[in-house]
Amino acid sequence: MQKHKLVIIGMGNVGSAVLVQAVAQELAAEIVCVDINEKKAHGEALDMTHATPALCSPTVSVRSGGFEECKDADIIICAGGPSILPDEKLDRLILAKRNIKVITDIMTEVTTYTKDAIFIMITNPLDITTYLAASKFDYAPGKLFGTGTTLETLRLKRIIANHYNVNAKDVQGFMLGEHGNSAFPAWSTISIGGVPFNELDKYYNPPMPFDKAASADLVVKTAYDVLLSKGWTNTGIAMGACYLAKSVLFNSRCITPVSLPLNGEYGLNDVALSLPSIIGENGVEQRLAINLPDSELTDLHKSADSIKTVLKANNLIN
Amino acid sequence: MQKHKLVIIGMGNVGSAVLVQAVAQELAAEIVCVDINEKKAHGEALDMTHATPALCSPTVSVRSGGFEECKDADIIICAGGPSILPDEKLDRLILAKRNIKVITDIMTEVTTYTKDAIFIMITNPLDITTYLAASKFDYAPGKLFGTGTTLETLRLKRIIANHYNVNAKDVQGFMLGEHGNSAFPAWSTISIGGVPFNELDKYYNPPMPFDKAASADLVVKTAYDVLLSKGWTNTGIAMGACYLAKSVLFNSRCITPVSLPLNGEYGLNDVALSLPSIIGENGVEQRLAINLPDSELTDLHKSADSIKTVLKANNLIN
Amino acid sequence: MQKHKLVIIGMGNVGSAVLVQAVAQELAAEIVCVDINEKKAHGEALDMTHATPALCSPTVSVRSGGFEECKDADIIICAGGPSILPDEKLDRLILAKRNIKVITDIMTEVTTYTKDAIFIMITNPLDITTYLAASKFDYAPGKLFGTGTTLETLRLKRIIANHYNVNAKDVQGFMLGEHGNSAFPAWSTISIGGVPFNELDKYYNPPMPFDKAASADLVVKTAYDVLLSKGWTNTGIAMGACYLAKSVLFNSRCITPVSLPLNGEYGLNDVALSLPSIIGENGVEQRLAINLPDSELTDLHKSADSIKTVLKANNLIN
Amino acid sequence: MQKHKLVIIGMGNVGSAVLVQAVAQELAAEIVCVDINEKKAHGEALDMTHATPALCSPTVSVRSGGFEECKDADIIICAGGPSILPDEKLDRLILAKRNIKVITDIMTEVTTYTKDAIFIMITNPLDITTYLAASKFDYAPGKLFGTGTTLETLRLKRIIANHYNVNAKDVQGFMLGEHGNSAFPAWSTISIGGVPFNELDKYYNPPMPFDKAASADLVVKTAYDVLLSKGWTNTGIAMGACYLAKSVLFNSRCITPVSLPLNGEYGLNDVALSLPSIIGENGVEQRLAINLPDSELTDLHKSADSIKTVLKANNLIN
Repeated sequence: MQKHKLVIIGMGNVGSAVLVQAVAQELAAEIVCVDINEKKAHGEALDMTHATPALCSPTVSVRSGGFEECKDADIIICAGGPSILPDEKLDRLILAKRNIKVITDIMTEVTTYTKDAIFIMITNPLDITTYLAASKFDYAPGKLFGTGTTLETLRLKRIIANHYNVNAKDVQGFMLGEHGNSAFPAWSTISIGGVPFNELDKYYNPPMPFDKAASADLVVKTAYDVLLSKGWTNTGIAMGACYLAKSVLFNSRCITPVSLPLNGEYGLNDVALSLPSIIGENGVEQRLAINLPDSELTDLHKSADSIKTVLKANNLIN
Repeated sequence: MQKHKLVIIGMGNVGSAVLVQAVAQELAAEIVCVDINEKKAHGEALDMTHATPALCSPTVSVRSGGFEECKDADIIICAGGPSILPDEKLDRLILAKRNIKVITDIMTEVTTYTKDAIFIMITNPLDITTYLAASKFDYAPGKLFGTGTTLETLRLKRIIANHYNVNAKDVQGFMLGEHGNSAFPAWSTISIGGVPFNELDKYYNPPMPFDKAASADLVVKTAYDVLLSKGWTNTGIAMGACYLAKSVLFNSRCITPVSLPLNGEYGLNDVALSLPSIIGENGVEQRLAINLPDSELTDLHKSADSIKTVLKANNLIN
Repeated sequence: MQKHKLVIIGMGNVGSAVLVQAVAQELAAEIVCVDINEKKAHGEALDMTHATPALCSPTVSVRSGGFEECKDADIIICAGGPSILPDEKLDRLILAKRNIKVITDIMTEVTTYTKDAIFIMITNPLDITTYLAASKFDYAPGKLFGTGTTLETLRLKRIIANHYNVNAKDVQGFMLGEHGNSAFPAWSTISIGGVPFNELDKYYNPPMPFDKAASADLVVKTAYDVLLSKGWTNTGIAMGACYLAKSVLFNSRCITPVSLPLNGEYGLNDVALSLPSIIGENGVEQRLAINLPDSELTDLHKSADSIKTVLKANNLIN
Repeated sequence: MQKHKLVIIGMGNVGSAVLVQAVAQELAAEIVCVDINEKKAHGEALDMTHATPALCSPTVSVRSGGFEECKDADIIICAGGPSILPDEKLDRLILAKRNIKVITDIMTEVTTYTKDAIFIMITNPLDITTYLAASKFDYAPGKLFGTGTTLETLRLKRIIANHYNVNAKDVQGFMLGEHGNSAFPAWSTISIGGVPFNELDKYYNPPMPFDKAASADLVVKTAYDVLLSKGWTNTGIAMGACYLAKSVLFNSRCITPVSLPLNGEYGLNDVALSLPSIIGENGVEQRLAINLPDSELTDLHKSADSIKTVLKANNLIN
């Protein structure tokens, strides 16, 4: 009998939110918090151990530790590295230089101990760190992937659900491409309760017609709204990461867009970005290069170019 | 502060399964079991009280009682009346005569105490009992509805999900019409992960092409498979009913097909059947008479005719 | 990454209730139902697969199978064999003859595939079947144990909690000895909110003084009340078994009385009965032969004698 | 049908952790975040709305709002006011002056709209703010109470559970008195699995004998350890507050120490501190002035004196 073990790397605002969600969702019987600031990891783990006697589940063992804890981990969730701050230029890509170094250090450590635990990347700029970690450290293919536009997709669902006053879980469809400014809604994938996107206004009686451009814009802006209002974003992304982790642990084959280096899909290589993917016990079980109309293909290629520019500037691709 | 109160009427195989799911999902702080066989209600409630000290939630109060408990109920779930038995002719409609009497008795009792608690009907033949209960007792419109093809929809999702090896929660779409033999898949509403029904074979690599007719047939047959294999069906329907109840209690506006008397949708009146509906704190908040292709319209009208035949035979309509 | 796998043996009223609780509590990603009546196992598994698309968790894979499924199981819960029926003499021990044969057959099958999966016995008479299974098939010590007086303890907590109008989870203490008529409350272990048993009446304002003899009697009688009222008991025992299973899977080291062959505790050998035990990833991690006052020691030895009589009559001990 | 509504006042580290736990535990269908910094409340609510489409429950409605939202709230949890900072003198009582003003403002606002919603105070110094809020604003008696030593009790359980290597939920007993430095373990209330405190070393095989003085000290120190390590404490207290809230919403009559003005218990008046209490739908349903040995009575009176000194210095009592 093998208890499930989760390692969370990086115990800042995001990592500590992942810890809380992971315990609430009973993701693993054993959770280890890792941070280069060992006191911070210790404090977050300790605070949680004070909470667990009131948990409804039997118990979860939470502690802090070093990278050697990855050795027998089932899942690693990485939120290491600094985030963008409210007073910085509001583009995730300026983080690239800083976090390429951070992720290189982390992956060097992690791959000393494992190359096939499921590894879920959260650190931004997400597609850059995912490309780096997935392609430069000989990690088992598909087992390391980035949360990608999982969060943008949740945000899009929330926006559409609010507009039509329906449950967000009944909204289908994806944001694709970069996790960041060039993410785009794949309108062709969107439906609510079996009604395709173009007919939504007809059945769901919104107070005003749906505005595609404004909504696409709002998905990106709402992230900055959170960032500027509370100083960081963590609740949404923590939920997204744990949703992926649970899909792995239960081999539930959920379909959600995650980031992974492409292998020629849509003619694209040398870049990581988010496409709809089936998530199961082996990580990304299948990539779905679904049929996209021309306008969305254009968006996808623009998004790829935007990511490639940063990869090149940092010598990760030629 | 008003605790939530649930009354379950009919504590046979289905009602007792509803009790277990309701406690597991923490639907209400107070649950009352009602059955004309008072010993049975007492026994089911008592067995559950033995289980609750090991529950992860703080506690749920479970007891048996009479119809007067409906007075301050938030939700009533009705599974009263006999089910079809494995050795009977396998058609839910032969139950009509028996259960029209049972539901008349139950509604007479219930409406002595309340006409606006949310009332979820499970008793078969579902569309007959729903039509009767919703239209003949002056019950608040929309607050009494039948589980309808919620269960057939779950079964269809399971069948499609198994075929394509994806999570059943990522399968969208509905079975509509009668809860029973004439239920039909609204293929036009079906998609997986943003991929419409007609393209599924292309992306999800099934071992063989999807067979629509066989699958539609299987949705109905799998119910009889359960019935003949275990002697009754209860797990699936209990889950479906509790899903609806939770959507009411959280006002979550989920979209699922439930049965309700029609008001001219698709030119139909004097019949109850399942259409996609938004479920919220007021019960059925909105009916969605979505655009259906001709073949599905034909199926819908056939299904309506099948139900009307029984309603007429029992003098519920002219 | 190793998903958790649960095998349930025996899909009657108890086994099917275990299935429902196991899914509700997300005990395992994979659950296999086994029964000599393959149709019954098929039907229960199939009904559950119809429910899972509405589950809140990502998914659980449920199917029926044969004993070979035990090979890679993490946990096996055994509810095989007939139960006592309402119209039989109301003593679990008359079941012994029948179920010794059943359990011998089951253990012969199971141990072909594994001797160290955690095995939780529910089949009655519990202490007889546990003694047989744990001592005659070379099973890993401590990894096979019976639910024992876990259920009586839940019932006692419910009775005391109702009397004092407090949450049953705040009632501490155990029923010990036989799972059946000679089980006894270890009053010396009982407290509520830090108040020892003898002072409860003083602080918790019950409507009448607590009656020890009547309450001890009621723990046994309430089981028959359920049995005679609904025809069987299953909700409580299923919850108890899943509580134990979760304690194993999360290595949560819960303390609860379970049945295991004794090794000289209280001078007793050649008998299985329930003592408080620490339950963790290895099954019974530690037995607590706690200090009992003379009257409870007498009860314990009486209970042991009662079990030994049946073991001897069936040639399981000399 | 009345959905449950929760208002959280104060969206700093603690309030935002309460929000996450409240959603994870499905405390209410509607949650409103209130903060004098409206942007902060907006940001926390917005981030959570991005998470809810991935929730397993149907949905929770989360938004920010003003104090008028208290009007129809079922429960209000107050975490308003600044916390102690790592670089300040490490005594919660120096916060008194600051937060008396904050709580006066908050209660003036809240009581414009309601005086009988259940109100759970978290703001420190807890016993001072609780005394003020419960006694100076004509609030319904027992409906406003402070989390008190609920958190110290969780910490004590964790420490004892770790020492004896058992599940913390099987550790019974309380920390009582002040929420802060003079809190004390009521050793006489402590037991594990029916074994009283004085016999624990005998049965649970700890690596070294239990040290009462060091452990009592550790309960207080571990709070500062969290504070100094991560910069604040929030996970534990958020869990404690939600545990209390759930006990109210389910009327579960859990027993836990919470703070409330005393009415002559142990000869004490004009002070709020924590005694074991039964928590139900009316808030504190009963206070348990349990029998304490002399040494614990001395600790209790010392703790009361410590709180009274601050109440007097701030003219809350004479």
